[in-house]
Amino acid sequence: MVNWFRRQTQRVVVPRLHSRDEAFAGVSRVELAELTPDLLPYLAQAAYLQLTVFELLSEVVTDAPTVGAKEAISRVAGYSLDKQHKLVAELQRIKGTDAGDAMQPYAARIDAYRAGTRGATWAEALTSAYVTAGLLDDFYRRVAVGLPADASRRVLEIYDAEDGESILVDQLRSAIEADPKLASPLALWGRRLVGDTLLIARSALALPTDGHSEEERLEPVFTELIAAHTRRMDALGLTA
Amino acid sequence: MVNWFRRQTQRVVVPRLHSRDEAFAGVSRVELAELTPDLLPYLAQAAYLQLTVFELLSEVVTDAPTVGAKEAISRVAGYSLDKQHKLVAELQRIKGTDAGDAMQPYAARIDAYRAGTRGATWAEALTSAYVTAGLLDDFYRRVAVGLPADASRRVLEIYDAEDGESILVDQLRSAIEADPKLASPLALWGRRLVGDTLLIARSALALPTDGHSEEERLEPVFTELIAAHTRRMDALGLTA
Repeated sequence: MVNWFRRQTQRVVVPRLHSRDEAFAGVSRVELAELTPDLLPYLAQAAYLQLTVFELLSEVVTDAPTVGAKEAISRVAGYSLDKQHKLVAELQRIKGTDAGDAMQPYAARIDAYRAGTRGATWAEALTSAYVTAGLLDDFYRRVAVGLPADASRRVLEIYDAEDGESILVDQLRSAIEADPKLASPLALWGRRLVGDTLLIARSALALPTDGHSEEERLEPVFTELIAAHTRRMDALGLTA
Repeated sequence: MVNWFRRQTQRVVVPRLHSRDEAFAGVSRVELAELTPDLLPYLAQAAYLQLTVFELLSEVVTDAPTVGAKEAISRVAGYSLDKQHKLVAELQRIKGTDAGDAMQPYAARIDAYRAGTRGATWAEALTSAYVTAGLLDDFYRRVAVGLPADASRRVLEIYDAEDGESILVDQLRSAIEADPKLASPLALWGRRLVGDTLLIARSALALPTDGHSEEERLEPVFTELIAAHTRRMDALGLTA
């Protein structure tokens, strides 16, 4: 088992990893491409996870403490749903594919992931929406390197679209400023989310069950994902 | 008190009332225009109600029994959210308006309406999304006649956009076909929703508190809304 958490106490300031050129600085594209699943399972799992992120965001909208917060976060829910619909459109480009049928095999595992990462309070749910969407987007953006070139380009466009992350940061910072006692439990909650999210991400890869060399290949990817996660927690003033 | 329910047992087949020209067949535009509230309260209440419809739809997405149903209903949630964002954009055209502040006065009453119309089961929630969105859209479309001409035109465009209603009909028909015992309780639930929804709609109007003549003016509007509601229930094979 790779120790994903070893580097978590380092407070590395990393750049945003949204552009295609930056995204593979630390990991060979060729090596990561070998772990990329086929297009259909890639898109099906990504689309169902994205639906889950949307559902979480819509709960955060519903439970928001003010009408202003509701309105702001509804924008993020809209971006999230747009992204999901674009991923489904890619899925439907694959001849003979029914999007519902394609996503179904991933539903039970991802529903369990969602139930475990929802959080008990509004602030936890908001943190989950921010942290898990950030990790999953980074992960799927990187893994797209191994998709067929056309699909890879279109998928990266989908992941590079506006996602409203800064709205979530503003809402979370306001919540923490209004109640500073939230900072410590939210920092712990963020740490918990990393583990669950990297596990669900890992399940999307084309890994042989006994592949020690694949685990080694994967470690730098997860290290980069955690570095980006650390930056996200820094933006909240929280320790990752 | 007007008896809104008197005509409910008539099974009138009415045309869809989505076009501007059809929408006022039975009621004088001039008379209805006198009940139209000012632009700001019109938009603020319409936008907050629309946010509520979106929240209900997103719950229906989350609780959907199959991935295919989730995916289909997520389209409707997307249309609903687009509509909400367009109403907020209109609100923000009014100089000095903060959308959150503008909607806040309506939040408590509408939140209570939402809690009372959510339903206890997935099928009830889906019926609520279909019935209440239909009634509210018809209502706000009609009342828009009294807004300033520019705003009225833009608001009607917002309400005339694709709303995914046929997706909800398909999902509801499938649910009732799969479990015919649902038909009778859903028909009753639909009837219950009309009362609550027309009450919340009524609260949006510029009605003097003692205005008997306004109540009389309102009756034909509600009669038309109920006729359109009857058509919606007919589309499900249910008695309104």
